[in-house]
Amino acid sequence: MLATDEKTIAFTRGVPPLEAIPVRELAGHAAAVLDERPEVAFQYAPLGGYLGDPELREALAAFHPGTDPAGVFVGNGSLQVLDLLAAELLKDGPAPVLVEAPTYDRAIGIIQRHGGEPIGVPMEADGIDLEALERLLAARRPAFLYLIPDFQNPSGVTLGEDKRWALVDLAARQGLTIVEDIPYRELRYRGSAPPRLGEIAGDAPVITVGSLTKVLAPGLRVGYAIGSPELAAALARRAEATYLSPTPLAQAVAARAMAAGLARSNVERIRAIFAPRLDGAVAAARRVFGEALISEPDGGYFLGLRLSGRVDEPALLAAARAEGVVLASGQAFLPPSHRTSGAAFLRLPFHALDPADFADGAARLGSVLGGLGALDS
Amino acid sequence: MLATDEKTIAFTRGVPPLEAIPVRELAGHAAAVLDERPEVAFQYAPLGGYLGDPELREALAAFHPGTDPAGVFVGNGSLQVLDLLAAELLKDGPAPVLVEAPTYDRAIGIIQRHGGEPIGVPMEADGIDLEALERLLAARRPAFLYLIPDFQNPSGVTLGEDKRWALVDLAARQGLTIVEDIPYRELRYRGSAPPRLGEIAGDAPVITVGSLTKVLAPGLRVGYAIGSPELAAALARRAEATYLSPTPLAQAVAARAMAAGLARSNVERIRAIFAPRLDGAVAAARRVFGEALISEPDGGYFLGLRLSGRVDEPALLAAARAEGVVLASGQAFLPPSHRTSGAAFLRLPFHALDPADFADGAARLGSVLGGLGALDS
Repeated sequence: MLATDEKTIAFTRGVPPLEAIPVRELAGHAAAVLDERPEVAFQYAPLGGYLGDPELREALAAFHPGTDPAGVFVGNGSLQVLDLLAAELLKDGPAPVLVEAPTYDRAIGIIQRHGGEPIGVPMEADGIDLEALERLLAARRPAFLYLIPDFQNPSGVTLGEDKRWALVDLAARQGLTIVEDIPYRELRYRGSAPPRLGEIAGDAPVITVGSLTKVLAPGLRVGYAIGSPELAAALARRAEATYLSPTPLAQAVAARAMAAGLARSNVERIRAIFAPRLDGAVAAARRVFGEALISEPDGGYFLGLRLSGRVDEPALLAAARAEGVVLASGQAFLPPSHRTSGAAFLRLPFHALDPADFADGAARLGSVLGGLGALDS
Repeated sequence: MLATDEKTIAFTRGVPPLEAIPVRELAGHAAAVLDERPEVAFQYAPLGGYLGDPELREALAAFHPGTDPAGVFVGNGSLQVLDLLAAELLKDGPAPVLVEAPTYDRAIGIIQRHGGEPIGVPMEADGIDLEALERLLAARRPAFLYLIPDFQNPSGVTLGEDKRWALVDLAARQGLTIVEDIPYRELRYRGSAPPRLGEIAGDAPVITVGSLTKVLAPGLRVGYAIGSPELAAALARRAEATYLSPTPLAQAVAARAMAAGLARSNVERIRAIFAPRLDGAVAAARRVFGEALISEPDGGYFLGLRLSGRVDEPALLAAARAEGVVLASGQAFLPPSHRTSGAAFLRLPFHALDPADFADGAARLGSVLGGLGALDS
């Protein structure tokens, strides 16, 4: 049981901590928008993205070199963009959709809501198992493949560079549409980044979904898709039929902040805050969980654990809770095709925890998992 | 043909003109939010509505006396709220949905997208034909009845008080869910308002959908539903699964503006601007269109014309355009059940037009319609 002087460690939701949000600078940009062009802030906004000076689409395209602003669609946060995109890609009716197993739980729900059947592709330490992907593609034609290639939520895994080239080659050959969701890509605290799938797509149909939530602020509600101008126009039509207009004040603030380079400077600031948290968390997790740690990420918010699958998840979460460790359900991150009777996966967010607290929580969790036989695979 | 010195008159989209938006006051509230609690403006926001001080849900409940704040759900504009509400009310599968004929074109699309089959109830000068409604209810059980009871978009019609009592009585007896959409209700320029359906619902299941677009500003993207606390919670769950969070800065500005009474004072200001436009438009339309004018509204944005149905709509719109009169398609406002081969309806927004311009446009349109035989029913 939890001693009375021990604090509860929460390994739960992946929200940016306040210290990662440049509140003062954003408030300054907002004040400037209200001062310079208040009428724009309170009228309807253009659907594809704020068109004032500076333009949000141009600023986002510049943030991802090689991108055509006409192929950028900006919506109310990346989940809303994913919702519109899933509707567009599944417009011809129910179809399988390939996802990483595990993957982002809310993406599973969105795919299902639009008639998709999420089918999991197993994850390795360097991303999805390409042989398993080829076997799945030989069996059924999916509407698209949904990936989070950088510091994946929930596993922390990054898709390796060799696999990226092999994947776009496969996608080009088979006409497989890839949706890469990259909210954590810029949050790299060490090492250098492999190319973005959209950058090396060549003839492969790759759509990139991005977000300003982790590089600037959740409250801006700026998510975007990068694809063809035709796709951007189709998403704008769906947005108009769903919410008529995004929030112009937030988009104008985002455009001004991006044009001023605030995302880049804030990412530098975030790196300095999060890098020691990552180093401490990886060291503690490797020590405590051994081979159950799926990978050692170089950035992002999360570490992932692979469990034995022999322990009932609610019992496991309750036992951890009794030791002052609060966990999110790992089953929720698995597509129905990969859900097991026992706990097979856990997500450990490290980004908002002091390294000593992470190590403390990991040690307590390790005892619980070991005692239950949840670790040995 | 249009003489070179005549200007084009646009009878098209119903957007609030800039003079109806209290830009300076809203910018002041935004500056105060950024000054007093900037961190709230840029983090995720509570799903049901901004919970800061003042609370948006409480401010909206106070705007509609007799409303429980726990039954208020606030979303990204009323179209998004209607989208979530349609998903909730149609969650058991495809079903008929009764709508006014004509009705708001985007509502037709939303109902269809969620598996509803919009079926029109004919409109009279004082709102839907209740006998026709009873006949439709005897034949098929609808998921709900969607109404715009005040200064309807697109017809300008207001549901009469007697019909309101009869309708809630019918709804209570038959367990018919009514969704009343009231974006224009506060924009009354003369006379006194009949009770809101939600106020007199008694045992009838009535859900009210409202918006701050016309009383404050489109750019706030604040729409809301008023129903049971259970409904508000269900809508919040759907919102979380769709867009994760509304825009906190906009909601905080709206909460502060509402608590300060800005909506009430702005409505007074709008009345002074729009009342002479209404008076001039109604007089001109009655003179030019006679009995084709569906009703003489006491507020809102729109007048509606009932046409003969004998003239092809594209030909009619092109002929009007040649005379410098730009019209929106009237067919788009009709549910498929009521679409005809010829033009049967036209919407004439008057709110943003100088009375002389409206009269000029109406006179030219009258000549076109008369010449084509579109008016005589």
